Amino acid sequence: MNIEIINIGDELLIGQVVNTNASWMGEQLSLAGFKVQQFTIIGDTREQILDALWKAGERSEVVLISGGIGPTKDDITKTTLCDFFGTRLVFDEEAYKDVESMFARRGYQVTELNRQQAYLPEDCTSIPNKLGTARGMWFEKSFPSRIPHPVSGTQDAEARMQEPGYSKLRQVIYVSMPGVPFEMKSMMEEYIIHELKTRFHPKSIYHKTILTQGIGESFLAAIIEEWENNLPPAIRLAYLPQPGIVRLRLTGTGDNDASIRSLVEEEVEKLYSLIPEYIFGADDDKLEAIIGRMLKEKGCSLGTAESCTGGYIAHLVTSIPGSSSYFKGSIIAYDNEVKELMLGIMPETFEEFGAVSEEVVTEMAIGAQSHLNVDYVIAVSGIAGPDGGTPEKPVGTTWIAIATPDEVFAKQFLFGDSRDRNIRRAALQALNMLRKNLAGQ
Amino acid sequence: MNIEIINIGDELLIGQVVNTNASWMGEQLSLAGFKVQQFTIIGDTREQILDALWKAGERSEVVLISGGIGPTKDDITKTTLCDFFGTRLVFDEEAYKDVESMFARRGYQVTELNRQQAYLPEDCTSIPNKLGTARGMWFEKSFPSRIPHPVSGTQDAEARMQEPGYSKLRQVIYVSMPGVPFEMKSMMEEYIIHELKTRFHPKSIYHKTILTQGIGESFLAAIIEEWENNLPPAIRLAYLPQPGIVRLRLTGTGDNDASIRSLVEEEVEKLYSLIPEYIFGADDDKLEAIIGRMLKEKGCSLGTAESCTGGYIAHLVTSIPGSSSYFKGSIIAYDNEVKELMLGIMPETFEEFGAVSEEVVTEMAIGAQSHLNVDYVIAVSGIAGPDGGTPEKPVGTTWIAIATPDEVFAKQFLFGDSRDRNIRRAALQALNMLRKNLAGQ
Repeated sequence: MNIEIINIGDELLIGQVVNTNASWMGEQLSLAGFKVQQFTIIGDTREQILDALWKAGERSEVVLISGGIGPTKDDITKTTLCDFFGTRLVFDEEAYKDVESMFARRGYQVTELNRQQAYLPEDCTSIPNKLGTARGMWFEKSFPSRIPHPVSGTQDAEARMQEPGYSKLRQVIYVSMPGVPFEMKSMMEEYIIHELKTRFHPKSIYHKTILTQGIGESFLAAIIEEWENNLPPAIRLAYLPQPGIVRLRLTGTGDNDASIRSLVEEEVEKLYSLIPEYIFGADDDKLEAIIGRMLKEKGCSLGTAESCTGGYIAHLVTSIPGSSSYFKGSIIAYDNEVKELMLGIMPETFEEFGAVSEEVVTEMAIGAQSHLNVDYVIAVSGIAGPDGGTPEKPVGTTWIAIATPDEVFAKQFLFGDSRDRNIRRAALQALNMLRKNLAGQ
Repeated sequence: MNIEIINIGDELLIGQVVNTNASWMGEQLSLAGFKVQQFTIIGDTREQILDALWKAGERSEVVLISGGIGPTKDDITKTTLCDFFGTRLVFDEEAYKDVESMFARRGYQVTELNRQQAYLPEDCTSIPNKLGTARGMWFEKSFPSRIPHPVSGTQDAEARMQEPGYSKLRQVIYVSMPGVPFEMKSMMEEYIIHELKTRFHPKSIYHKTILTQGIGESFLAAIIEEWENNLPPAIRLAYLPQPGIVRLRLTGTGDNDASIRSLVEEEVEKLYSLIPEYIFGADDDKLEAIIGRMLKEKGCSLGTAESCTGGYIAHLVTSIPGSSSYFKGSIIAYDNEVKELMLGIMPETFEEFGAVSEEVVTEMAIGAQSHLNVDYVIAVSGIAGPDGGTPEKPVGTTWIAIATPDEVFAKQFLFGDSRDRNIRRAALQALNMLRKNLAGQ
């Protein structure tokens, strides 16, 4: 069974909006065990909508449409859908009551524009929209079976039409949804994916994403090569690299939920024993949230002393709601004078070792620990670039120190030559050094 | 003249990668004055590629393809292109020399896989790739003229084929590019867009984006309504809102480069005189880069004292290369104890006014100015949420102070209830307050 996605909206074609709806829908459908055949993105004209509906139905059994409906856009898409399915718009009391009560909750009167939204195609099942006023519409249509695809030399469409099987009819499902991301997502999650699963019984599918830090994709691939080669055929592996992090996604497919789940978890366990030092979490975990939980459990506080990361570590830590219960503050010492004034580092230490050195980063960590009165400190000093590198200390050279109630330790890294990526990699590396220490690794 | 875009890649369909290529291409082509008709995203199978090539050629005069070529993906796409265009792969000496010299520069031997990339379709113009090994391919093909679009009731494809004009031939251009974003972008910018402009002479087009801060989209729209209604018909206006910033894009279209440019600039000037307090820059300007330039010119230094923004302002400021020449450091005082220890705020001030108050944020700014020994300070104290709000000071309440060599001033804001957006809006608002002061506004 093939699924296609049609996104309607001029704003997508002129690049004003990046089409995150398509990738989200593709991901959710894949995760549910369906195969997505094609995305088609078109403007909101009758001609383009009809062309896309027709061609998608020739190729696929399910066509999911987002966009082109809503208070100011309703006209073209809904009337075009009616023409395509040979039906007409009728006033839907239930849909109107929904709009009315949504407006009442917000203290507004229903406008004429919104009243129009209660007109729905007679010949469809409408899908409630908990978060907006445009309902979803579920259509089913008999369709000639797939036209054989043209190949070079037989591009004569007339010849294609004569091929056997063309006139057989089959059912195609079309579902139209609003383009507003959170409205579309809620309809997909609460109704459409469930309904498609009930109809088509895709295979059981189970995903687990393992998050690694501190090792590049190709080095990681070399270490786990044997494990990867011995994965059972029911499990596929995908490498999903981001700056500073490589995610490994295992996808198991089978006939039984419980057995495919345990098959994947077995392989995850092997992976944990193979590269324990690089794995920091799974699925949606974030390093800054993990260390937050660990600090809370210990009842300990955290501060940072940052030079080249310029406050990015503090920003990540404080992006987590509730971080004020363990994060007390930071000293961003970009200039050496600030390192002296606020962290008590001696001018001689700079002269002897340079600002990017084990000695300075260690003193930064100790200085922040006492000045901020915290249990743990992350300290970073490095050369983010593009300027400031030397033959001995090229751009990307970075020292990271962690101060704990018991000790201070530091490590040197050589990242790349992109300023943005160096800042990001240093921050993730530093957070992971603290995580390992908190975990007793 | 219509353009279509085809993106090839399974990773796009399963949502592993968001399709930023399509939106970038759509934007660049629109900016160059072309109309993009459709994006089609497909997996890398022969059947899907043929189907997409065929159908795009029926609708459009130019078809731009990205993805499906490169060292490990070459086979299917290139042989399928050869079949579609009725040609064959031949070894291209010039292409091979390019690959060889690129490898020599990096100190590698050419692999067999990369040698294969020098096989190109005989019947195409190949496009050099300065940043990779996969060349672009420019094909031209005679094609039956557009099939009239199906409408309800006449979905019989055979009937469509009989309609007049079907058998007329016209030229369709197909260009195949790699899917690696920077390789595709360089080919588009250096060759393809220029070539399409030469062939099709689109109308002159001129864009200018005005950046505003400190006012919401609907309030802004109300203020500039009259100006907007009186825009000449050759100019279109688009609102592009982001958290904390609303961009206004003016697009002028005409027959003459110089006259359309001056028409747009005239309207931009009117806009400047209408809302001078909200405009901070144009096109790709960034607030953190603008204040950096201004501080450098004055030979002045900057520091921050941040509570709820948690280092995000320092991060923005230090994301600009060369910021170390004016940014000295920050005190991130998340906890009141740190505000006392590092900024010298009296416990009584908290007791009397609370941490989110004009008095505290003003003392933060003055304290940082002397402790960090800087000329200018941005200080922020607020309630980012989700917790910490009270009836008098709900989530989103934020005080921002600016200390200059001459004065300190503070202002209160009430942002929304999203933690992420509150942090971002507070940071942009604070940077803009400093910019206005530096500009003497």
